[in-house]
Amino acid sequence: MKKIASVLFAASLLISVGVHAQIKAVNPAEFHGAVADKKLYKVVYQLNSDDDKVIKATMKNMMNALEDPRLKGKLEAELVVHGGGVAVFKKEGPYEEQLKALQAKGVILAECENTLRERKITKDELFDFISFVPSGNGELIIRQQQGWAMVHP
Amino acid sequence: MKKIASVLFAASLLISVGVHAQIKAVNPAEFHGAVADKKLYKVVYQLNSDDDKVIKATMKNMMNALEDPRLKGKLEAELVVHGGGVAVFKKEGPYEEQLKALQAKGVILAECENTLRERKITKDELFDFISFVPSGNGELIIRQQQGWAMVHP
Amino acid sequence: MKKIASVLFAASLLISVGVHAQIKAVNPAEFHGAVADKKLYKVVYQLNSDDDKVIKATMKNMMNALEDPRLKGKLEAELVVHGGGVAVFKKEGPYEEQLKALQAKGVILAECENTLRERKITKDELFDFISFVPSGNGELIIRQQQGWAMVHP
Repeated sequence: MKKIASVLFAASLLISVGVHAQIKAVNPAEFHGAVADKKLYKVVYQLNSDDDKVIKATMKNMMNALEDPRLKGKLEAELVVHGGGVAVFKKEGPYEEQLKALQAKGVILAECENTLRERKITKDELFDFISFVPSGNGELIIRQQQGWAMVHP
Repeated sequence: MKKIASVLFAASLLISVGVHAQIKAVNPAEFHGAVADKKLYKVVYQLNSDDDKVIKATMKNMMNALEDPRLKGKLEAELVVHGGGVAVFKKEGPYEEQLKALQAKGVILAECENTLRERKITKDELFDFISFVPSGNGELIIRQQQGWAMVHP
Repeated sequence: MKKIASVLFAASLLISVGVHAQIKAVNPAEFHGAVADKKLYKVVYQLNSDDDKVIKATMKNMMNALEDPRLKGKLEAELVVHGGGVAVFKKEGPYEEQLKALQAKGVILAECENTLRERKITKDELFDFISFVPSGNGELIIRQQQGWAMVHP
């Protein structure tokens, strides 16, 4: 049954997009994800929200990417924090453990200095194991233009 | 009047950014969008929300891109779903028709297997015409590093 | 004390990720952001929300990137507006000053024509100093495939 469905699917797709030779028809049952054949991958994650759910999801997403069997051991990552996202780096906050788990996997933890000025936050209020960049947005742009992927959960 | 405004605009822009020879001054009345001179375009869309408005907007955005006169017939697309976004693939949900319309245009529909484990969702609960990838975040990263564009509506 | 911490950090990182020779260990105290050694940078910003906070944050983010000491004078930028984001371009709205400040720095201000059709908005309702593109999503894709970075605040 599944095989017939696959054939019918391929046939219908051929009819609908087949006229454009360049669009490959992909059989959903046979697609298991893009193949990671490069030696090294790089990604920058953007966090600009103080919403606890977004903060936790962002860190979990990064960990999932680092643990993806296709990328494990070959993914360089940076977490760029600006705006409300600065909450993740507050000493008084609850995120130290997850941040250190990411850092132990080589993740760069970068806080936007513009945000500190705008919100009158001193570096003393933040964890001492993080890094600072002139602007979070500049960092996101430069990284992408250096060939890094970008994810904003 | 419009012509005078254009000239004034160009002149003022020349004064303000003209010192940096590399930044091109663009006349807004003469700009009608980037030119698509490549034979083939590729894009991955990220959906990680169960908000009905976000889900519908994401699918509509994809359709708009596929129908953009500049890209029509030469855009390969993949919808990567993770986190709360899994709602779009639930059999009991209301999105079958729009998903099939996208698939008929060659769109790959990919669900994150990490999400299924974390949320204890079985593949039986999801449409049988979709694909599965080890992690949605890994997929988003690999695709971008393969040269695909990425949009997160 | 700080020096000892740095050495300990580097050592611990070496143990945890050092087995993967390709992942560089970065000392957080010594990292001050990616280096911008290119002559010209390009970025497209996406705005698809009518939330006043998101609209203002998007424009502020763009300005921060344009003023980042690493990018100042060598960043070409475009603001692509679609969906609810059209609020930023409404003549009756409060955003004229910030838009003109961005435009004075060479920023292209682009509205999605699909959105106008779907929402029955006429060009008369919008500022006369903006540009129009066939679809916002198409624009975001073409720009990225031309090598532009993309930020969606």
